[in-house]
Amino acid sequence: MKITKDLYQGSLALLTDFYQLTMAYAYWKSGKAEQEAVFNLFFRKHPFQGGFTLAAGLDYVIDYCKNFKFGKEDIHYLSEMKDKDGERLFDPGFLDYLSNMKFTCDIDAVEEGTVVFPNAPMIRVKGPLIQCQLLETPLLNIFNFQTLIATKAARINLAAKGEPVLEFGLRRAQGIDGALAASRASYIGGCTSTSNVMAGKLFGIPVSGTHAHSWIMSFETELEAFEAYADAFPDQCIFLVDTYDTLNGVKNAIKVGEALRSRGKEMVGIRIDSGDLAYYSNKAREMLDEAGFPDAKIVASNDLDEHIITSLKGQEASINVWGVGTKLVTAFDQPALGAVYKLSAIRIENGTYVPKIKISQQSLKINVPGFHNVKRYYSKGMAVADMIYLEDQEINPKGIVIIDPIDSTRRKRIMPYFYQEEILLKPIFREGKQVYTSPDLSTIRNRAASQLESLDKTHKRMVNPHLYPVGLEENLHHLRTELVLKAQKLDQKDEK
Amino acid sequence: MKITKDLYQGSLALLTDFYQLTMAYAYWKSGKAEQEAVFNLFFRKHPFQGGFTLAAGLDYVIDYCKNFKFGKEDIHYLSEMKDKDGERLFDPGFLDYLSNMKFTCDIDAVEEGTVVFPNAPMIRVKGPLIQCQLLETPLLNIFNFQTLIATKAARINLAAKGEPVLEFGLRRAQGIDGALAASRASYIGGCTSTSNVMAGKLFGIPVSGTHAHSWIMSFETELEAFEAYADAFPDQCIFLVDTYDTLNGVKNAIKVGEALRSRGKEMVGIRIDSGDLAYYSNKAREMLDEAGFPDAKIVASNDLDEHIITSLKGQEASINVWGVGTKLVTAFDQPALGAVYKLSAIRIENGTYVPKIKISQQSLKINVPGFHNVKRYYSKGMAVADMIYLEDQEINPKGIVIIDPIDSTRRKRIMPYFYQEEILLKPIFREGKQVYTSPDLSTIRNRAASQLESLDKTHKRMVNPHLYPVGLEENLHHLRTELVLKAQKLDQKDEK
Repeated sequence: MKITKDLYQGSLALLTDFYQLTMAYAYWKSGKAEQEAVFNLFFRKHPFQGGFTLAAGLDYVIDYCKNFKFGKEDIHYLSEMKDKDGERLFDPGFLDYLSNMKFTCDIDAVEEGTVVFPNAPMIRVKGPLIQCQLLETPLLNIFNFQTLIATKAARINLAAKGEPVLEFGLRRAQGIDGALAASRASYIGGCTSTSNVMAGKLFGIPVSGTHAHSWIMSFETELEAFEAYADAFPDQCIFLVDTYDTLNGVKNAIKVGEALRSRGKEMVGIRIDSGDLAYYSNKAREMLDEAGFPDAKIVASNDLDEHIITSLKGQEASINVWGVGTKLVTAFDQPALGAVYKLSAIRIENGTYVPKIKISQQSLKINVPGFHNVKRYYSKGMAVADMIYLEDQEINPKGIVIIDPIDSTRRKRIMPYFYQEEILLKPIFREGKQVYTSPDLSTIRNRAASQLESLDKTHKRMVNPHLYPVGLEENLHHLRTELVLKAQKLDQKDEK
Repeated sequence: MKITKDLYQGSLALLTDFYQLTMAYAYWKSGKAEQEAVFNLFFRKHPFQGGFTLAAGLDYVIDYCKNFKFGKEDIHYLSEMKDKDGERLFDPGFLDYLSNMKFTCDIDAVEEGTVVFPNAPMIRVKGPLIQCQLLETPLLNIFNFQTLIATKAARINLAAKGEPVLEFGLRRAQGIDGALAASRASYIGGCTSTSNVMAGKLFGIPVSGTHAHSWIMSFETELEAFEAYADAFPDQCIFLVDTYDTLNGVKNAIKVGEALRSRGKEMVGIRIDSGDLAYYSNKAREMLDEAGFPDAKIVASNDLDEHIITSLKGQEASINVWGVGTKLVTAFDQPALGAVYKLSAIRIENGTYVPKIKISQQSLKINVPGFHNVKRYYSKGMAVADMIYLEDQEINPKGIVIIDPIDSTRRKRIMPYFYQEEILLKPIFREGKQVYTSPDLSTIRNRAASQLESLDKTHKRMVNPHLYPVGLEENLHHLRTELVLKAQKLDQKDEK
């Protein structure tokens, strides 16, 4: 096994759930493989009990779809699968079909760095049923994780109130691209840099880092260790002061800072990675100020997240730079976003699309049917509401009512002519051809920042945020209600 | 950006924290780069408030080390890094040194599928300081995650009491190999199969899966959908019954089951993915039994973990097969294992190794010094205690006292001649040459099963497990105590 080669050099077409392949086979066998369908990827609840979610992952999705192809080895693997009687599971005709399959879907999606809300599609896939289905799992894998981390990063950066947040989660991240994709998403969410050098190389994210406790321990004394480090990096010394005794470490940092100054250099600051960060940062600040280093930064780390940063700020800790690892890159308090991918329409023989719904005992779990998109209304640059609407139906331009998909008594009237509007799902692929190119990462990061700016601060509250209005346009609401009732009748028909 | 190519085809040498590189540079500059050191990778606390941890990830580590090499692009990337004055950050001599660097370390590690305990090393790396340091982050990334998931899988499988557990976490996993590595670790921990086809192909894990709600929804009625599926897979039908109405779904499954039977085929069972699993599984069991399908399996899924499975078993739910996704592959309730990698000895000019310690206000965080290994004592096949001991010191064979590393009043006397013993760290690399080959995955999985068998059930309790004794051999205990006291004095020396 070679993680550097075998794992990723080949095709990623098999990066999907087995049931997508069994369904693909059954679609093929029943002649439905190329029936056109529409699927939507969306989530039902913001992560972290928050009031917003920040979309990320589209560039990976584009890459995945562009390169979507079953390779020879994939086909060989599938051809060897047996059923319980030892017969080949898949018909050779089906495997031929798979090896000749070309990606031909239309995909529309929200741009990376867009603030998104429950029930509204982040990605819409239209195309042959079999392709839509095979894409379900990889699209969810990519979008669920990267959106989750971008959101966590945005929350942490909001808590840091503009002070730099350094991401250094690689050692605790869930796998190799659990780290790489997290570094990218963290940067989109507002982090200043990553410790992950490979993420720096691949994505152009600034990298940062100084030294570890082991550096100190490899010398006879802490002072010697600081001196040797200052010798190698006279311009960018941040001394880790807590290997043995934090305040004694600060004293040693000051000594080396003074020596640097006598050579015309300035130490950048110190880092504290353990103990009571409020107490030690304030003590260290006093010591640094008294010694004539008022500009030396204090970097703090040790299992920080948005809540601990908020608490440290409330205690007036003297921390200027926040190092965040585990809690960010694993989204520790909620390590998965529950986004789903649901069929919302299917084309029947006469060429029309039939809207589809999955009913459920929990109304939260009933999806939005039809071929829909999302429109955001802005007033003076601030987002006021999102409307989910059917693309092929006209909307009354004079007055719109949007209706909450869960509680239909929650309604909001919108006068569109007062507002600017933005259609959130942008065309990404048309008949398998890429029609959208991802902007560079810093443009995405800027979009995230301005999207967060456009959101009222009450929606960005860490705890108990104010609910941003997202609703179904009236026609869509009526369609959905009708389908739910019809589906319930359908069950009864099945029962006979 | 190409996830399928750029991300993984090149070298993974930069998959490390930037501070490893700044330290590497400073070691090189201060002439310490090739000073020999010993580092240990260990954790301080079992995950999930459990009583054991199951090691996994070694095969990835072997692969990483075997292929460890800075590529041309890596060196180019580093050569372009600038300090704040716009000068090149790294001296070209250092970059030459990196490009010629060959992996030459000795590595000892616990085999995959070994049950492990806090403070005892899982991996020991001995070699040039600069190499040991560069390996820190990738080794932690690999071992932290895979060990975490193998442990979670073992817990879930213990809760399922021998009934099959299917892993299908791909869509919620943290990234691509967040999923692949999780599937592998889950299989080691006892799962029967994965839904991830790529994991099946790469690692030879059995794959499983049937169909989704969208399969049902793409047909006019649920019954038609079941019929079409039965047509494609007459031998392995598990019908998902909860798209519209669960009990009505069971009725439809029975109808198709009867039709299959008339063709000489048997349906395998049904799957329930929502609602009250205890209630619906018992209702479905009754219906299936009455209809003459007592052997039809009931597969349940929906955010299951070891606690929910235990609770469902307590309620006598009629579930035969457990489908587990999100909670397993993200280790939802504790998504990171806090393993660390600490310097424990360094070789000085006269050729002797000086043991090293990092002291801390929290005694939990003080590491074990020296060049040590772990011995496990077994009595009649059951593990009774682990001893951490210095490899170069003789141990009194007649009577050993092991001392808890946190609370030195907790001691246990061991009479070695009553016991079988196993040295847990096995040689993996010697001077950079691989001397160990990973067994195949099913052998690893069997080792995990027999290791778990060797552990008393009180240590495997889900909540409040009995503490398994792990202690320092007396010489090591004395060395550690001495070093702590000395380190405290050293601080005072620095202060002058």
